[in-house]
Amino acid sequence: MTVELPSKEENFSEWFSTIIDVAEIADFRYPIKGCGIWLAYGFKLRQNVCKTMRKFHDETGHDEMLFPMLIPEDLLRKESDHIKGFEDEVYWITHGGLSPLDVKLALRPTSETVMYPMYALWIRSHADMPIKAYQIVSIFRYETKATKPLIRVREVTTFKEAHTAHSTFEEAEEQVKEAISVYKNIFDSLGIPYLISRRPEWDKFAGSEYSLAFETVVPDGRTLQIGTIHQLGQNFSKAFNMEFETKDGGRDFAYQTCYGISERSVAAVIAAHGDDQGLILPPNVAPLKVVIVPIWYKGKEEEVNEACEKVYNILKESGITVKLDDRDITAGRKFYDWELKGVPIRIEIGPKDVESGVVTFVNRLTKKKETYPLTPTEKLVDKIKEILNEIQDDLYKNAHRKFEEKFLHKANSLDEAQELLEGRNGIVMVPWCGDDECGFQLEDKLGGTILGIPVEEKVTLEGECLTCGREAITFVATSRPY
Amino acid sequence: MTVELPSKEENFSEWFSTIIDVAEIADFRYPIKGCGIWLAYGFKLRQNVCKTMRKFHDETGHDEMLFPMLIPEDLLRKESDHIKGFEDEVYWITHGGLSPLDVKLALRPTSETVMYPMYALWIRSHADMPIKAYQIVSIFRYETKATKPLIRVREVTTFKEAHTAHSTFEEAEEQVKEAISVYKNIFDSLGIPYLISRRPEWDKFAGSEYSLAFETVVPDGRTLQIGTIHQLGQNFSKAFNMEFETKDGGRDFAYQTCYGISERSVAAVIAAHGDDQGLILPPNVAPLKVVIVPIWYKGKEEEVNEACEKVYNILKESGITVKLDDRDITAGRKFYDWELKGVPIRIEIGPKDVESGVVTFVNRLTKKKETYPLTPTEKLVDKIKEILNEIQDDLYKNAHRKFEEKFLHKANSLDEAQELLEGRNGIVMVPWCGDDECGFQLEDKLGGTILGIPVEEKVTLEGECLTCGREAITFVATSRPY
Repeated sequence: MTVELPSKEENFSEWFSTIIDVAEIADFRYPIKGCGIWLAYGFKLRQNVCKTMRKFHDETGHDEMLFPMLIPEDLLRKESDHIKGFEDEVYWITHGGLSPLDVKLALRPTSETVMYPMYALWIRSHADMPIKAYQIVSIFRYETKATKPLIRVREVTTFKEAHTAHSTFEEAEEQVKEAISVYKNIFDSLGIPYLISRRPEWDKFAGSEYSLAFETVVPDGRTLQIGTIHQLGQNFSKAFNMEFETKDGGRDFAYQTCYGISERSVAAVIAAHGDDQGLILPPNVAPLKVVIVPIWYKGKEEEVNEACEKVYNILKESGITVKLDDRDITAGRKFYDWELKGVPIRIEIGPKDVESGVVTFVNRLTKKKETYPLTPTEKLVDKIKEILNEIQDDLYKNAHRKFEEKFLHKANSLDEAQELLEGRNGIVMVPWCGDDECGFQLEDKLGGTILGIPVEEKVTLEGECLTCGREAITFVATSRPY
Repeated sequence: MTVELPSKEENFSEWFSTIIDVAEIADFRYPIKGCGIWLAYGFKLRQNVCKTMRKFHDETGHDEMLFPMLIPEDLLRKESDHIKGFEDEVYWITHGGLSPLDVKLALRPTSETVMYPMYALWIRSHADMPIKAYQIVSIFRYETKATKPLIRVREVTTFKEAHTAHSTFEEAEEQVKEAISVYKNIFDSLGIPYLISRRPEWDKFAGSEYSLAFETVVPDGRTLQIGTIHQLGQNFSKAFNMEFETKDGGRDFAYQTCYGISERSVAAVIAAHGDDQGLILPPNVAPLKVVIVPIWYKGKEEEVNEACEKVYNILKESGITVKLDDRDITAGRKFYDWELKGVPIRIEIGPKDVESGVVTFVNRLTKKKETYPLTPTEKLVDKIKEILNEIQDDLYKNAHRKFEEKFLHKANSLDEAQELLEGRNGIVMVPWCGDDECGFQLEDKLGGTILGIPVEEKVTLEGECLTCGREAITFVATSRPY
């Protein structure tokens, strides 16, 4: 059975839910809303995205660890702003077996209050820092809003959270910069465009000094927050008594940062690169880079199969993940399946190819076909790597071009901004004085949400605050964030 | 600061707790008993053990997936034996935020009741099977017994559970055999000796037809269950309505198996191979295969450092995980640290080595030193691989020899068996008629626990049941299982 995909541009939300289902990424029919299953193919995609996160964290001296999932109530309550921020959405365990527990346990909504009591044990002196640890785990939020696969879920199955401790505020500031660069590397490697902004005071992370966020825009013009970075200062280190001996023999509390990315990164990969035929997965994270489809003609099956197996073995040995699809169904049906699943290169081999000693490549992105000699095999492998690199680059460029042309706007008047926001055109930058009260009024007037001040300005703005008319600093707004 | 390790043979329990701490495997000071932190080094060891599990599951066509952690109460109660087996140790979530939940949610103690409702959706016909899925996840048990790091915990952070569905009972039986072979490959690759036995009826998994278990013995003579395999028959498939159309057009319920391994596999690696100087990690899973320690002499530092870096780069390029320890502390202290952490090979390079164009290897297991020429570098790399293979083999052989000589016994009388069990000599095989009532009496008389009937007999027994005197079939007992 084949499925007609909804149009990605015209009906993104439906396209997204359908593709997750038919490309076998995840199954969200589990009886708890917002809890889904990563299917085999989706799991591999997720693993490759995790591998990308690990690579850039490990390279910069982060240590992967694993902390407990349960948080005693008193720990979760230690930092007063933090608990306020999470109180409404924490799951509480009250019973072990048939007996009530002495202390209620929370399922981690994030791990500050799990990790920092341990940091307090590990940190005695400045020499014990920096600590730069991360983990990739499930976190839980009791979402009362409508859930959406990979985007708004109750079990976030793929939360990469890094938590650092430093002996000076300056070092923590440097860490924020490193985190930005790590996150840029990750999203660049996934081909996901983004805007980084510093959240307004009223929208920062519960317990932080300030928060930065990475936003992308999905095809329906709504923004999707895909990463956050928080300067925690000493808020948690004081609450958790992370005191240490300084270089000059004094006492101080550690300076901290934390930063997180969730499975929204997988959602963003899907949203950034697919088309009306299905997924188009960046070769960097595609579970399969190449699929080989034999084109059988009566009496020629053997030669075709032999050639297919030869190419399969060549690619496998050279470390390219490849599948030979020898199912007993039509070639057309196979094309359909692998286009849906977004495999970057399809290789077709039929009797004519065998005769001429070539293979036929089909590029999933451009749909272009080309033939290439089967031998020498090293050249064939190089050619495939070249096409994979091209697809990776093209996906990056296309997604970035679209983001900048279609979803990043500048408006100097309320009318203009309103129109752009109502039309769901992504992110609209408008002038704002920086005053909270003006910000709230502006959100009301525009019917949009203030994301914050861009960290790396993409548009230089001049003008007056759209609310009070005072001198403005840039800000960013969006019609409907996910 | 260095720590005097307790003797591994004389005081295993203390040795085990100490080594987990000082070798930086895990930190169990978290305020919830039985919940610990995998530290950076321990996390890498755990990851490598997981990689080993993945390898042998993937090779045999198992698909890795990821299922939700929360189970609505009605699902957990669907298979009546199953819920009885877990009722006393399930954590219950009763509140989301400040509101009570309509349906209580359990933290998964194992995932039959999570996965099988999905299997029921996926299975329509015999052609949808076999399903062979696995996941590596945290599971939770509200342990009331004393907890022990990696051995008896409340959050089992590393539970590999595989769940299969088949269209005939025979196929499920074949799957049990495949599972045995997968598990043998995993434990063999970790160098862990084991005995496989079929659990007595009263000790099988809640909801299974029969259960097999892999047991190893740790140095204090207590057995440790490290893996289980269950033939589920149609118990769950009927409860979860996993009905399908058979090949001949009839209707039937799926036949199922499941099998699990936890972080006890990591505990068993530690227990099987360490000595009084610390861990000895099998090269197959050691986070570092080689550590290089420069031996500095005044005025010769530069040559030494150069040679160290050269060797470091050679090894790194050839894919051997290696660390160059250039910390500003004594070489002796470094030796101590890396012996504690069980790195298989230490390379020492001092001015004399540089002069003679050699490097000095120290084998962590045999403590033997030997020198080898620095060039040609391919030969150096081959030599290192050779030593790693030797260490891997020797660890396997030593552990198996010890297991068979010291911990597998045969007794034909009550007295003999009692003596062996009281002395904590591992597993004692005694004759038993197979009758449940005799089994209970025997456990009482011996002060031991019946593990079950060996699947691959290591001892051929003749004799009469030690309780009733009837004709016996082999069985296995142990003084104190963990």
